[in-house]
Amino acid sequence: MAQSDVQQKPLSDQEVKLFNKWWAAANYLAVGQIYLLANPLLREPLKLEHTKPRLLGHWGTTPGLSFIYLHLNRIIKKRDKDILYITGPGHGAPGILAACYLEGTYTEYFPDITEDEEGLFKFFKQFSFPGGIPSHAAASTPGSIHEGGELGYSLSHAYGAVFDNPDLICACVIGDGEAETGPLATAWHSNKFLDPKTDGAVLPILHLNGYKIANPTVLARIPKEELTDLLKGYGYNPIYVEGHEYDIMHQKMATALDEAFDQIEAIQKNARVNNDTTRPVWPVIVLRSPKGWTGPKEIDGLKTEDYWRAHQVPFGELSNPEHLKDLELWLKSYKPEELFDENGSVKQELKDLAPTGNKRMSAIPYGNGGLLKRPLRLPDFRKYAVNISSPGKDFNEATKVLGNYLRDVMKMNEATRNFRVLAPDENNSNRLGAVLEVTNRAWNAKTFDYDDHLAVDGRVMEVLSEHTCQGWLEGYLLTGRHGFMSCYEAFIHIVDSMVNQHAKWLKHCKELPWRRPIASLNYLLTSHVWRQDHNGFSHQDPGFIDHIVNKKADVSRVYLPPDANTLLCVADHCLRSWDRINVIVAGKQPQQQWLDMKSAIKHCSQGIGIWEWASNDKGQDPDVVLACAGDVPTLETMAAVKLLRELLPDLKVRVINVVDLMVLQSHDQHPHGMEDFDFDMLFTADKPVIFVYHGYPALIHRLIYKRKNNRNFHVHGFREEGTTTTPFDMAVENNLDRYHIVENVINRVPTIGNQSAYIVQYLRDKLIEHKAYIHEHGEDMPEIRNWTW
Amino acid sequence: MAQSDVQQKPLSDQEVKLFNKWWAAANYLAVGQIYLLANPLLREPLKLEHTKPRLLGHWGTTPGLSFIYLHLNRIIKKRDKDILYITGPGHGAPGILAACYLEGTYTEYFPDITEDEEGLFKFFKQFSFPGGIPSHAAASTPGSIHEGGELGYSLSHAYGAVFDNPDLICACVIGDGEAETGPLATAWHSNKFLDPKTDGAVLPILHLNGYKIANPTVLARIPKEELTDLLKGYGYNPIYVEGHEYDIMHQKMATALDEAFDQIEAIQKNARVNNDTTRPVWPVIVLRSPKGWTGPKEIDGLKTEDYWRAHQVPFGELSNPEHLKDLELWLKSYKPEELFDENGSVKQELKDLAPTGNKRMSAIPYGNGGLLKRPLRLPDFRKYAVNISSPGKDFNEATKVLGNYLRDVMKMNEATRNFRVLAPDENNSNRLGAVLEVTNRAWNAKTFDYDDHLAVDGRVMEVLSEHTCQGWLEGYLLTGRHGFMSCYEAFIHIVDSMVNQHAKWLKHCKELPWRRPIASLNYLLTSHVWRQDHNGFSHQDPGFIDHIVNKKADVSRVYLPPDANTLLCVADHCLRSWDRINVIVAGKQPQQQWLDMKSAIKHCSQGIGIWEWASNDKGQDPDVVLACAGDVPTLETMAAVKLLRELLPDLKVRVINVVDLMVLQSHDQHPHGMEDFDFDMLFTADKPVIFVYHGYPALIHRLIYKRKNNRNFHVHGFREEGTTTTPFDMAVENNLDRYHIVENVINRVPTIGNQSAYIVQYLRDKLIEHKAYIHEHGEDMPEIRNWTW
Repeated sequence: MAQSDVQQKPLSDQEVKLFNKWWAAANYLAVGQIYLLANPLLREPLKLEHTKPRLLGHWGTTPGLSFIYLHLNRIIKKRDKDILYITGPGHGAPGILAACYLEGTYTEYFPDITEDEEGLFKFFKQFSFPGGIPSHAAASTPGSIHEGGELGYSLSHAYGAVFDNPDLICACVIGDGEAETGPLATAWHSNKFLDPKTDGAVLPILHLNGYKIANPTVLARIPKEELTDLLKGYGYNPIYVEGHEYDIMHQKMATALDEAFDQIEAIQKNARVNNDTTRPVWPVIVLRSPKGWTGPKEIDGLKTEDYWRAHQVPFGELSNPEHLKDLELWLKSYKPEELFDENGSVKQELKDLAPTGNKRMSAIPYGNGGLLKRPLRLPDFRKYAVNISSPGKDFNEATKVLGNYLRDVMKMNEATRNFRVLAPDENNSNRLGAVLEVTNRAWNAKTFDYDDHLAVDGRVMEVLSEHTCQGWLEGYLLTGRHGFMSCYEAFIHIVDSMVNQHAKWLKHCKELPWRRPIASLNYLLTSHVWRQDHNGFSHQDPGFIDHIVNKKADVSRVYLPPDANTLLCVADHCLRSWDRINVIVAGKQPQQQWLDMKSAIKHCSQGIGIWEWASNDKGQDPDVVLACAGDVPTLETMAAVKLLRELLPDLKVRVINVVDLMVLQSHDQHPHGMEDFDFDMLFTADKPVIFVYHGYPALIHRLIYKRKNNRNFHVHGFREEGTTTTPFDMAVENNLDRYHIVENVINRVPTIGNQSAYIVQYLRDKLIEHKAYIHEHGEDMPEIRNWTW
Repeated sequence: MAQSDVQQKPLSDQEVKLFNKWWAAANYLAVGQIYLLANPLLREPLKLEHTKPRLLGHWGTTPGLSFIYLHLNRIIKKRDKDILYITGPGHGAPGILAACYLEGTYTEYFPDITEDEEGLFKFFKQFSFPGGIPSHAAASTPGSIHEGGELGYSLSHAYGAVFDNPDLICACVIGDGEAETGPLATAWHSNKFLDPKTDGAVLPILHLNGYKIANPTVLARIPKEELTDLLKGYGYNPIYVEGHEYDIMHQKMATALDEAFDQIEAIQKNARVNNDTTRPVWPVIVLRSPKGWTGPKEIDGLKTEDYWRAHQVPFGELSNPEHLKDLELWLKSYKPEELFDENGSVKQELKDLAPTGNKRMSAIPYGNGGLLKRPLRLPDFRKYAVNISSPGKDFNEATKVLGNYLRDVMKMNEATRNFRVLAPDENNSNRLGAVLEVTNRAWNAKTFDYDDHLAVDGRVMEVLSEHTCQGWLEGYLLTGRHGFMSCYEAFIHIVDSMVNQHAKWLKHCKELPWRRPIASLNYLLTSHVWRQDHNGFSHQDPGFIDHIVNKKADVSRVYLPPDANTLLCVADHCLRSWDRINVIVAGKQPQQQWLDMKSAIKHCSQGIGIWEWASNDKGQDPDVVLACAGDVPTLETMAAVKLLRELLPDLKVRVINVVDLMVLQSHDQHPHGMEDFDFDMLFTADKPVIFVYHGYPALIHRLIYKRKNNRNFHVHGFREEGTTTTPFDMAVENNLDRYHIVENVINRVPTIGNQSAYIVQYLRDKLIEHKAYIHEHGEDMPEIRNWTW
């Protein structure tokens, strides 16, 4: 068991004294941020008007966060380490910002927040104040890659950050509230995907201070043996630091960190010198310290320190003179006069406890990953083009073709090790298997000789947790690398909320000139709604697109390439982009190919276009516009066009395909949005438009509601009708098939006239024939399966 | 350690023989479902045309699921237990359906699937076949409350099912794939919220068969000691059943289940007789058996059984005569001639192994919870009404008022124990604290004397996992009870995907006449986007409404009550409803109250209405319609109306408030949708409508796109602009405040004319004044804070 249970004294008395002073300074700065609007050094008696009218930020977790910070500084200096500090607990920023201010970084990033009384005043005021900064470790916090507003992702972010960063150690504080979340609970297993040789290390620090808002936490209230079992079961060696007496706790924490870093160094040496990359048992520190440590023991006679009352702001109502006095005593308990000089600058002896330059956790380049980002080397995607003898004749699997391209991306960036692919439901299942020709699946657990493409240093990340994959990828991108994640379309909803938070982070970064762009978050949603006929209704949901479209226009992109060449073109574009969330939806099944590479490039660069070779309105007004977005919608639209050509040869049909969904929106709403003039030219101002769309139809209506011709848009899409059936029947059940499309054209074009009754009869007969066939044979009619343009 | 490691023989040789036969029958039926389209008893040599053209369903997990089923049947018969069987592994339905067929339930539910050769033919054909049934334990599977298409929720469903069902034991099979998900990883801790006296028990069965699609699983590849530690750390006592030899494994499984049920009985007796409800260590069974057990060892010379190749369909390409032969040999290995009689009926000796009537897991009423559901006793919500001296004058906290009502709902249903409230971010934080006057927080872990309202039998469920709360609630509802979940609006996105699956389940149930209605899933989203000014941007997201609106119209409801009385009215309505997902969005902060109870009832029963007392267009055409939905939008709209009254007294303004968002949609799209005639009467056919909406503006455009006046709708809503600031400033940052609304009115009403320049100047000055004030004082101007109608 942990050495730290035995009392050791790695710190001299003088060091303990200084540590207490630094920590007092950090805590003073934290309380100041939460409470003070003026009189930052308490040079006059505290009055109500010196305090903030609204008290925000969480005191409870704060002293623990700065305590850990201080001790990590010691390690950095002593062992010359690069440490990235990730703090999971929500609203703990006062402690981190205080540390950041104490080591001078804050003033470097925000020169207006000077290291004197005036600067302190501004530093205090801005916290959780209008026009100021949030109470989380948001993007505006130097050195942070993890905001922590929504709990659950600290540990997967930490692992993402250290993959392929062998010199980096990520110290990840996990609050006992956050530890109850699902994403965190499974992220512990990330150690089975880490290579101690080519990756860095994560040191989780489970911070048990016992309470959430008003409730105890689970992990703080189970027997210690159970907690030990749990952490050992996750594959870690727990080192406990428990108590509340300052001097003793400093010695314990220093001992524990020394022990943890000894273990990490031994593991890494064994891996790197002895080439033994067998999964080691990594250390984890369990810090059990009082909630609101160093704060008031009681307020109004009620237990406060070490209790839930210390979770947020431990007391308010400062118009109560008792409370005002309590606050003043509390602040003065840190003896600010010993911490700051006459100008209000932090005393040099405290500053000296921090490392310098980029070694400071608040200035480490990994914490502003764009600084480290280098563009990917990309092969010429044209090289992977599939040959098109004639549109709609040849079949190919789009994502399989993309797999060849991704394989070479992987290969070309092997030396820099800055590209990974991730897939919660497995890369091969999404037909990107070619990547395994040049790398393996990351796996650091038991293997058997019959296992397939598992390796400790594999670069294909597969774990049955969308949360973990997403968290890893975010951590990887935020520290300056690149990635590509494929997922079943329905199950990407599992990370809706994580995507929200990442989109918010990106938006916030764009408002901070010192935050450098990071690589885009790229999704390939294959196994999409129309090709989940075999997996059934639970696997059929195209709503992630709607989710992403709600995000800021300069962040979100949605691409629906209809075939392999357009998919290559779009994927290449996404891998070159930055600061975006790119959603590509494309099927993995063999399907008709439409565009040769030259046409594909032209089409994708505009994002939308008339397919002239499929249209017959050239030189004339069309009678109807048939538009499509998505691979299956394109197929059914083309089949409908062919039917129309046979049934109504005189009908002038214009065929439009949309690759970049955002072109539909007004150009004042989205940078990709078309000008009205262009839109009207394509879709006409008054002709019926039958729009066959991959997802929920309502999205098209909302994207085009400002357009002149919007009333004439009739959208076919997913109507939430699904089951286990044939591919074509999925379309039929949602009225997205060729027959329903043709019938809709007949309904909408007034000039078609009397012949329509027979045609409609024919279409309905075809549908009945289809149903009868599949119920007998269990697969689509040959004329459907083998259909070509 | 587990007794079962020692070889015991609880089964006689005759029993083992029978068990093997029953299991062979189940496996034969499973393989038949996956492969056969004809010749169900192999009475003639197997030909290609007897097989399905598309092979679906997962063989890998199936034999394990039926193995467990068989042994649970033994326990039910031996100990007279009520067992609900939840199976997490995806696509494992062939095994469960086989068991269901073997015990006759299937034929009872689906009389067309008879117990003879003809019935077998249909039973085989329908599986994963167009017009048939899915490969999951979907709603169409008798006895199932858990589909398992999306992985992660089996264990929280199981716990939800046994809460307040003391006589129920839920046997929950967790696949080693599912075990990697976050929601599952944290659901283990549900044992800290279970009362062994008043709740039933969950017996988790971790089924390690080693592989996902093409990858090993984490828990199957860590050392056994680590797995033991992990499960002990979760608070369970693992009992291992490991091996592959049939006879031995039957003895081991019987031994293990005897041991597990002995432990459960001892725990329950201790709790119920000795009144000792201290958290016990519950048993968990770890079944390590080969993937695709009893299936082909090799196919094409490649390892198949006990390998990933057995995960889905172990082999296809039946046009290959070798494969066809392999299939025939495989099927015949089960000796169907010994299992079925001449008619194709299962032999009686096998049928006799199952329990009878409602004791059958496939017929247990808990598995069709609507059978057990009794309506809640509800107090008269009018009793809780807040007094309104005059609209917009008095302040109240809507959710606090609701708390009083919920307290009495809790009290009135105490005897039947069929109502719980859940809150991932804590009930008190959402101001529903009154509920704790009559119950406690469920908590079965260490307590201290200073703890607050924790009790083993508490009915307020709080854990910092939205997934777990959601899973518990779903399990609770699906077994016939009622619940109410409050959540921060932004973080309900965490369960987007779970909500999808529940909505799909409800839709599917409605298509099955024997599935009885269950209570609705009721959400209160308080701490909503406009009142997260203090928690910052990460806490600001109103997009869950958009998500829910994509679900089927007969499932989804969205309510935006503007004040306390309307909230009471809406909540009462939701608690009376069934088979729906009701989303109520209402703030918890003190806010202006608008409607007395009489008006509130009238308003809510229509879902929308003109607020005559705020309008001045009576008897005339309005110049502009001001509509609002949501509490903060209502406040800002009313403030805008008051400003307009002062600035432009001649302007005829009609004020409309929307409580039930779905009324806006066309009546052919949603059952609550208004007829066009009514809509046009309210919103006019041609006047400008300024619509001030709680969420993303695009939703309003998509709901009304079919309406005549849609082009004149101008929507204010959340524009994804947020930070830590004041409440009013949140509105300002998103142009949703009174001043922006008035300016928009001026823009849209052509008749206002020349006076507008001065008014606009005034409005902009007010905004500048606001910004200056908050940047100095940190709170809104008194005229904003104290504003009344």
